[in-house]
Formats: sequence, C-alpha cells, structure tokens
Amino acid sequence: MGWATEPVQPIEAVKPGSPEKVELGKMLFFEPRLSRSNAISCNSCHNLATGGVDNQVSSLGHQWKEGPINSPTVLNSNLNFVQFWDGRAKDLKEQAAGPIANPLEMAFTHKLAVETLHTLPEYRARFDAVYGKADFGIDEVTDAIAAFEETLITPNAPFDRWLKGDDKALTARQLKGYQLFKEKGCTACHNGVAIGGNSYQKMGLVKHYPTSNPAQGRGAVTGEQQFIGWFKVPTLRNIALTYPYFHDGAVWDLKEAVQIMADIQLGQRLSEQEADDMTDFLKSLTGDQPQIVLPILPPSRADTPRPQVKS
Amino acid sequence: MGWATEPVQPIEAVKPGSPEKVELGKMLFFEPRLSRSNAISCNSCHNLATGGVDNQVSSLGHQWKEGPINSPTVLNSNLNFVQFWDGRAKDLKEQAAGPIANPLEMAFTHKLAVETLHTLPEYRARFDAVYGKADFGIDEVTDAIAAFEETLITPNAPFDRWLKGDDKALTARQLKGYQLFKEKGCTACHNGVAIGGNSYQKMGLVKHYPTSNPAQGRGAVTGEQQFIGWFKVPTLRNIALTYPYFHDGAVWDLKEAVQIMADIQLGQRLSEQEADDMTDFLKSLTGDQPQIVLPILPPSRADTPRPQVKS
Repeated sequence: MGWATEPVQPIEAVKPGSPEKVELGKMLFFEPRLSRSNAISCNSCHNLATGGVDNQVSSLGHQWKEGPINSPTVLNSNLNFVQFWDGRAKDLKEQAAGPIANPLEMAFTHKLAVETLHTLPEYRARFDAVYGKADFGIDEVTDAIAAFEETLITPNAPFDRWLKGDDKALTARQLKGYQLFKEKGCTACHNGVAIGGNSYQKMGLVKHYPTSNPAQGRGAVTGEQQFIGWFKVPTLRNIALTYPYFHDGAVWDLKEAVQIMADIQLGQRLSEQEADDMTDFLKSLTGDQPQIVLPILPPSRADTPRPQVKS
Repeated sequence: MGWATEPVQPIEAVKPGSPEKVELGKMLFFEPRLSRSNAISCNSCHNLATGGVDNQVSSLGHQWKEGPINSPTVLNSNLNFVQFWDGRAKDLKEQAAGPIANPLEMAFTHKLAVETLHTLPEYRARFDAVYGKADFGIDEVTDAIAAFEETLITPNAPFDRWLKGDDKALTARQLKGYQLFKEKGCTACHNGVAIGGNSYQKMGLVKHYPTSNPAQGRGAVTGEQQFIGWFKVPTLRNIALTYPYFHDGAVWDLKEAVQIMADIQLGQRLSEQEADDMTDFLKSLTGDQPQIVLPILPPSRADTPRPQVKS
C-alpha cells in the first residue's frame, strides 16, 4: 500500500452492526426524551448537520447551563482509544451514558430515561427485536446509540484519496503542509487513522497554555498529579468543521490553532506561510459526511413522563 | 369522487418548487446560525422527527426563555389560510421571518442573520443560482424556507385512504368516531383538506376557557375587541403527534382535548364511549411523515459572527 510508510492511514467505510440496531440507535441519538426537558438530544451537541459538533465554546445544556468542556465531534469517534477529553469512558457505549445524567447537559437520570422509553410500545418492540428484551435497561440504550455512532465515519477525504494514490487529490500547498506537519513533529501525537485519538498528551507540553477552563483532564480521573492538564489528543479529521478548538473551545481560527499548537507543544514558531500551508493541509481532512435520514419518533402516551423544563 | 359529499378532503402529495430552492430552504430550516446563540434552528421548535412540533407547552427559546404560545406544527402548514395562532402572517414566507427576530425565540435580527449567511460562500452561490443574487436579503431567506416547508405534506393517512375508497382503512370505532365528529358539529370549524386551518374561532365559544396564557389572539392583531380570544382553528392532521394541545399547550391527553372542545365550543357533554371513538378517529389522521435527509451545513469563516449565548 502507498501509505505503508506514512504516519497516517486512510479511513475506511464502516461495516455497520445489524441495520435494526443501528436504526434504533439513530432514533435514540435524536430522542429528546432522553433529557429532563425533552428538548435536548445527543444531536443537540453532536449535530450531524455541522460536523458532529455544535460549534460552541462549550455546549448549552439543561436550562441553558454551559458545559464544562468543548464537545468533541461524534464523527469517527469510534476510532478514539478512549472517550471524553479525559478518557473516563472506555468506549462509545460507556460515553453515551454520561450526558444523559449530567446535570449540566441532559440533566436526567438513567432510571427516568429508561422508564420514559418503556412507556413507548414502538421502542419496546424494537428493543425486543434487537436484544430479545422488551424490558431493556440503560445498557441496551447506550449499546444501540454506540452502534449508530460507529457508522458515523467520514471516508474519502482528499487526503485519503491522496494516500490511496490519487496524486491530484491534494494541492501543492496542501502537500507542502503535510510535509511540514510531519517535519515539525505534529505526527508524534496526530497519527494513525484518526490522526489523533490514540494517546493522551499534556496541553502545553513545552510552554504553559493559559486558559480559564478549570478542567484538569486525565489527572482528575486517575488521581495522578503528573497527569493534571493531560487530555486525549483529538482527531484532526473534519477539523475544518469542528471549531472552536481545544478542550476549552477558546480558539476559532484554524490557522491560529496551528500556530498555538506549534508553539506550546513543539516550541516552534511557524512562519505565516508555514501556518497557511499546514492549515490548507488540515482542510484536506474533511471527508464525506454521513447521509442521515431523520428518524420519526413514536409519540408519547398518557403515562409517558412529561418534560420538566423549570426544575 | 367518493369524498365529494364529505366535509373533509384528502390531502395530496405536493408539487414542490425547484429542487434547488427546496434544498436551500431545507439548509436554512436546520441552520442554527439564524439564531443569536447559533443553537436554535427552525427545526428546534418544529422538529421533523416529532410531528413538526417540540411537544412542549411553549417552546424554549434564547437563554431557555419560554415562548408565549404553543408551537403549531409545520407539517401541512401551507394549507393554513394564515400563519401563527393569531393570523398575523399572511403566508409561510412572512411567518418564517418572525421567530428569527423574536427575543423569546431565536433572538436575532434579520440584518444580523443575513450578514451571517453572507459570510458563507456556499450560501452565496446557492442564492445566486436560485434567485440570481448572491447579495440576497431576508426576503430570499424566508422565501426559500417557505419553499421547503411547502413540501412538508403528510399524505396517505388511514382517513385519506378511506376517503379515497379503501373501506378497510378505518376501524369500526374510527368510522363511528367520524360520524360523531360530524354530528356533534366539529366539522363546523374542522373541515377542508387540513381539517381546520381555514378560519378563526373564539376559544370558549359557548363556555369560558380558563387559561393562564395571556395571548389575546386575533383581537390583538386587528385591535377589535370582539376578536379578543379568537385564534386560528388548528389543523387536526397528525394531531396524535402534536400534543400538548390548544394555544396554551395546557392539555396533554387527546381524549381530554376532545372532551373540552365538545364542552366549551359546542356545549356538549360526550359519553366516555363517544370521546373514545372520536379520539380513535383523530388517530386516523396521522399521515406519512416527510423523509428528510439532514442537510450538511457549510462551516463558518473567520468573518462569520460568533454565537452570542450570554447576551
């Protein structure tokens, strides 16, 4: 393969789980009744119309509360070695349980979310068909959501086409940018199929990164002081769509993000031309976005809990 | 035609405007950058996954503010003789301009919304192709949204199939319910293709309707005292999906809504059986929901205004 000697590999189309499970997961991904207000779904913060993010500094949750950290893209998220910025979930299934119960996000409980879905015969029938249990629990809910999310792959980016041998897929500036991306050392962390997503790294490795965001990253999960300020290296796929950047969502401009990364992670000051070329390269990482047919959700019944928007 | 003698007519599939205009309108319908926060789109309150409504008493707008009135469904809304509960917009194009600038809803201004879209070359190219002007204004924005909304028709409800001669499309109870619907006088207001949407009527015609919602309806628009408390008669199509009911969103149960309507509009007390049969009939008005492929929206640029969530 042409890419055997490259630090980055092309992304491949996904082999989805059973279509019934994926369809059920899609319904749940768009299901506002997983939130206390019945107004917030997974798609609210991981909007598949906008690169799998909400393009906010941090997401707006229940009662317009601001979340603690920038929402990462759901696109290609199955390629991450762990989930969340601090890696506190081992996989997408475990991740999906988080926002439902987070008081700053969907502000519900797993018990209430499951009880809500239990009142809807269409969900009972679908869980019965997929899992053999109409009395499903949060495990099946998050498993189905994860199965849908696993399909949210974005193949066929210009850079992938170049990796596979299409010499015309990249411009000369993008090729120059890719050379710089390797030479400057970006690929130390941003490598592999997801061009990131496979290690933790300290934000501000060679130079302090000033931020008002109090998140402590990996160290807060493990209790190890030396990992305070360490975060999962994010994927760079679709990076042109997933602004604003960094765990604190502080930087809106991709070129500025490139310059800051070079400075604080690698101790390098890029020329304007270098930063422009590398930014152009990063724009070649936007792949085919998933084509999603909006699911039609079953109506509530008399015993379905009603939205709680004021409490 | 079999329905020539009926007060209700079947709904027909739509002849859409140009596909380019409809596609542009769909993008704008899902475009959160039409709101000050970049977090609210038309689809937030008129969710096409849930019957074209949000199933809230009143919608949650900018900074979780509650709107003044229950959001009507966007489905089949082109069949309404006027738009909004109080008819203050003459058509969908005029309606679409309202929520963008309403401080309780998207809380933006037309000027800022248009300026935001102007920074996105993909929109400029699409408006140029459809309207012959890359320097489009709010008129073209709302025209395109309306063109998309005109496609949101729900044909093929069981009741439509019955009207067209399929005797098995309705159950015996639904047929009984339809007879009662006519005999009790519901069709005085709920008639025509939309089974409503073609007249104003006083809420509480024969008996006062107690509500904490201060909306004054048509009278506040025209300044005529005698039309205080008059509202557009809503369509009953997809009524099983568009709870909670009435302009104040006070009633969640469809049977209860039927009983209240019979009582306060027609001065009739329905038996439990009558109310059940009529409710069953109303459930036969759920048509095929539009199949919507989620649009992919163009990313913001350096000069695109950023979301304002705190002000």
